[in-house]
Amino acid sequence: MAVSTESPRQRHKVAVIGSGNWGTTVAKLVAENTKAHPDLFEEDVQISPVINTYHENVKYLPKIALPPNVVANPSLLDAVKDSSILIFNLPHEFIGNVCRQIKGHILPSARGISCIKGVTVTEDKVELICEYIGETLGIYCGALSGANIANEIANELWCETTIAYNTPPCDRRSENGTNGDAAHRDARGQVSKIDLVPVPQEYPPVDHTALHKLFDRPYFTVSMVSDVVGVSLAGALKNIVALACGFIEGHGWNMTAKTAVMRRGMLETIHFCQEFFPETIQEMTFWESAGWSDMIVSCTSARNWRYSKMAAERGVSLYEIERTELNGQKLQGISTTKEVMSFLKARGVADKYPLFKAVEGIVDGTFEVKNIPVLFRQ
Amino acid sequence: MAVSTESPRQRHKVAVIGSGNWGTTVAKLVAENTKAHPDLFEEDVQISPVINTYHENVKYLPKIALPPNVVANPSLLDAVKDSSILIFNLPHEFIGNVCRQIKGHILPSARGISCIKGVTVTEDKVELICEYIGETLGIYCGALSGANIANEIANELWCETTIAYNTPPCDRRSENGTNGDAAHRDARGQVSKIDLVPVPQEYPPVDHTALHKLFDRPYFTVSMVSDVVGVSLAGALKNIVALACGFIEGHGWNMTAKTAVMRRGMLETIHFCQEFFPETIQEMTFWESAGWSDMIVSCTSARNWRYSKMAAERGVSLYEIERTELNGQKLQGISTTKEVMSFLKARGVADKYPLFKAVEGIVDGTFEVKNIPVLFRQ
Repeated sequence: MAVSTESPRQRHKVAVIGSGNWGTTVAKLVAENTKAHPDLFEEDVQISPVINTYHENVKYLPKIALPPNVVANPSLLDAVKDSSILIFNLPHEFIGNVCRQIKGHILPSARGISCIKGVTVTEDKVELICEYIGETLGIYCGALSGANIANEIANELWCETTIAYNTPPCDRRSENGTNGDAAHRDARGQVSKIDLVPVPQEYPPVDHTALHKLFDRPYFTVSMVSDVVGVSLAGALKNIVALACGFIEGHGWNMTAKTAVMRRGMLETIHFCQEFFPETIQEMTFWESAGWSDMIVSCTSARNWRYSKMAAERGVSLYEIERTELNGQKLQGISTTKEVMSFLKARGVADKYPLFKAVEGIVDGTFEVKNIPVLFRQ
Repeated sequence: MAVSTESPRQRHKVAVIGSGNWGTTVAKLVAENTKAHPDLFEEDVQISPVINTYHENVKYLPKIALPPNVVANPSLLDAVKDSSILIFNLPHEFIGNVCRQIKGHILPSARGISCIKGVTVTEDKVELICEYIGETLGIYCGALSGANIANEIANELWCETTIAYNTPPCDRRSENGTNGDAAHRDARGQVSKIDLVPVPQEYPPVDHTALHKLFDRPYFTVSMVSDVVGVSLAGALKNIVALACGFIEGHGWNMTAKTAVMRRGMLETIHFCQEFFPETIQEMTFWESAGWSDMIVSCTSARNWRYSKMAAERGVSLYEIERTELNGQKLQGISTTKEVMSFLKARGVADKYPLFKAVEGIVDGTFEVKNIPVLFRQ
């Protein structure tokens, strides 16, 4: 009997890091699937409440019954130490601390999925959250993103999502049961700096099939893609477009004008991805839930859209809205816009992104909402 | 002096056929442009009220002030006889009669733009409205389609649109001022059966530049494309998707589920175009206003969506809604669905279009709305 036909002796243990609204919801659906696939996964799913550690706000926890195999583990290090699949689902701003805390305390062959939308953009570079996690921990980490509203999914209202996971070559099991050995490439298509430890043969492979089984539910339809850049950047840049749509509607235009702005926003998003990640971007990614669907939902009901609409209706700045309506909390769309524009300006290409540039101008008071249609002139 | 530098001695005379809500709105904006470009167009725009002839419903006329150069001409034949650009903007069901009536009474070198969305699909073939007009009259006819609501545009609320016009080779003026002579190809990429009469040299060329000048306004942004098939079919098949979205929302799902259905509907639309018009379809067309934007607006506020939502909410059939809410009027989405499915079934490929097929099943009572998510299983 060849090695390839041996059943794996180990099953994957799954940990969810972060127990907010969205983290708890993901723990629930993942736990339903670990129970359904005992050949691949250990039934119990650890969930570590970074709430306690970082004072994440408890009031956001959904009022839903969790399956008994969701096991709250107050010790983050204990939750992750034997887990071979780590799901990151905590607020953006806690990622750095959490990664530093668990570094060296996880399985070297663990694999990650980041459910945290977005990227970190500075004048110097664009860094995907999943890339940051992977590089900090020395593992491979993919990304989950889509038109998803945690409370709806917690209540099993159907929607779909996209998981981007570019299975590392060392994890692609060849026919004779050994791991491949081609170099792993990072999101930019470059040979990765990480010396990846393969998922051991005694575990089932972590690939599109396994991840689909881990996340897909009758009420949560998962599409698997390989383009982590497209999925991550679509999830970040949509925040700029959502501000633009709010301004448009607050100014008195309707759905027809909003769709024009969404369309241009998506075209600028794709252009951005193709300009800075030409090796790995796939245009079809933008047809996924993480692309158009998330764009539409974000420009119709999300926070950035709601408050920019309010600003335009009242004729005040977004900063004024942050002060009067958000008690000083920051709108993510503003920082995304500022960061992306600083990156584009540093490269002298800001003019190729007229809508993004206009949103920054409106935020800063140097561009008037009523002039948005002028951007569309041929 | 070479011929090419001579200024054209004739200007285009424009006629709008159909004076309903949308026809009148288009006449208004076109008339603003003929006045702005006296080098290309005669100032007066004829509008022929097929209302009188075919009892089009007068109550739909918008309450807007028309520019004085919109000239109502009660005689259809008189309105079209000297017009070199004909804009068709009347209800689908009147097209056949109007074309038969004006055939032989128009300039043989006239060019058309159809603002009528849709296609005629039978078991045997798919025929674009603009193709039908062109072939019946022996002229070339393009198509205008987009996320457009007539009353909003009449009130100069900004939106954008798409014009598809594949300038016939005989109209492409070469550098020495003569017309080209390559064979004109129809929407399927085949050599056209029409023996096109070129736009005479004494007229300005009718091309993307001229049509952009004729239709583009500060409140109505025009994009020019060549793909008449994509633009026409997107404008028709979206009606099937709008029914699906209404069913989804009426059943109790939210925006996140709706975007999933829109996304799949758009993918089936593109697949349809690529399967039956492989020679001419351009995927970028679906990123235009006639693609995604029109899809979103139609699935959010249009008639097909509204009534299918009502049907699902009440748990009754769409036919019941036609009887009780529409006084027996027909919903266009139903006939589009039936026609498209009969075309697909005749070719044995209905199973490749699961969403379209499900919509027919819901209409006929053989498929339940609650099972739509099952279509999305991998």
